[in-house]
Amino acid sequence: MVTQSGKPAPDTSRRSERSRRAIYDAALALVVEVGYPRTTIEGIAARAGVGKQTIYRWWGSKADVLLEAFLDLGELAARDAGRAGHEADGIPDTGDLAADLKAVLRATVDQLKDPRFDAPSRALAAEGVVDEQMGREFTARLLEPSLQLYVDRLRSAQRAGQVRADLDPRIALEFFVSPLAQRWLQYTGPITYEYTDTLVDYALHGLAPR
Amino acid sequence: MVTQSGKPAPDTSRRSERSRRAIYDAALALVVEVGYPRTTIEGIAARAGVGKQTIYRWWGSKADVLLEAFLDLGELAARDAGRAGHEADGIPDTGDLAADLKAVLRATVDQLKDPRFDAPSRALAAEGVVDEQMGREFTARLLEPSLQLYVDRLRSAQRAGQVRADLDPRIALEFFVSPLAQRWLQYTGPITYEYTDTLVDYALHGLAPR
Repeated sequence: MVTQSGKPAPDTSRRSERSRRAIYDAALALVVEVGYPRTTIEGIAARAGVGKQTIYRWWGSKADVLLEAFLDLGELAARDAGRAGHEADGIPDTGDLAADLKAVLRATVDQLKDPRFDAPSRALAAEGVVDEQMGREFTARLLEPSLQLYVDRLRSAQRAGQVRADLDPRIALEFFVSPLAQRWLQYTGPITYEYTDTLVDYALHGLAPR
Repeated sequence: MVTQSGKPAPDTSRRSERSRRAIYDAALALVVEVGYPRTTIEGIAARAGVGKQTIYRWWGSKADVLLEAFLDLGELAARDAGRAGHEADGIPDTGDLAADLKAVLRATVDQLKDPRFDAPSRALAAEGVVDEQMGREFTARLLEPSLQLYVDRLRSAQRAGQVRADLDPRIALEFFVSPLAQRWLQYTGPITYEYTDTLVDYALHGLAPR
């Protein structure tokens, strides 16, 4: 095994990377199988084949482990889809707001349909629904950063005169994000590219005749 | 105790009504305390102080009991708010679409903040997120009928020329319902009248300048 630079990685960092990967996989698998409340640091350590102390050295709590496992999962999915760096760079800004929103929502459709993402995300979301503290923490740390990307893109569109200047982008973004979230969480309808494209058109132009 | 007509109710129907109420209360309380998977007909019967057979005489499954307990809860909440018959009659149609949508969404805000409704609804919604069959059944039987009221109101608005004729009302309604649902399920923002009023204005007029 070599690093990207072509040089052999030191043994310790290889071992660390292997352990980290095993811990993420174990945490995500456990939360699917037994649910968040019964997932423990001990259980994750046993399944990953590492000592409890290894986990405590890197993370403060099971919530922290899961949070990072999810962030890592998002990066993996983005890489697979050839969208590496997408999350970090935000929503594309080609000057065509509708096209940019449609592109990012199609990527979200792909992610929601990825079984690696679907099951652990559902397990965490379900727990958040009934455990307010946990729900608020995961929303603040996992969901809000991606919502902020919509705020940024909508602000740019406001500067470009493509979105009304008097709108609150934090509310406006919900027309793109929330319908899809509800269909995913509550099975209120099919999740397709055609559907998310339609959301963008309806939201930008409004339901009332122009 | 007398019936609404002023005549004494027969003993059996009084007893039945009391049992039915006790069964609903027990079912809703249990689903909050132990979750949907561990709520059983036996547990409901024990807590309600009735025999298991009483429950099986009226309902086929625990899902049926909970479904009716919820429908009953919705009716109670509507009655308290002086909105009796509201659900059955649909969303008001005064000719002013924005005002009618704002009124019904304000009533939904009240319901989401009612603790009698909040805890059992969360318990069921959380279970539906991870149990697809159960989620689909409760969505079909509890959620879809109220979504259909929006479809009807939007169709009427299309006939009146207040909503574009080429829009699919089943998708358009999600701009009113889904953002509120996501704020409730995932704590993505405060739930207020001002917020739901804003959703109506943004959705009808669109985000792009006119």
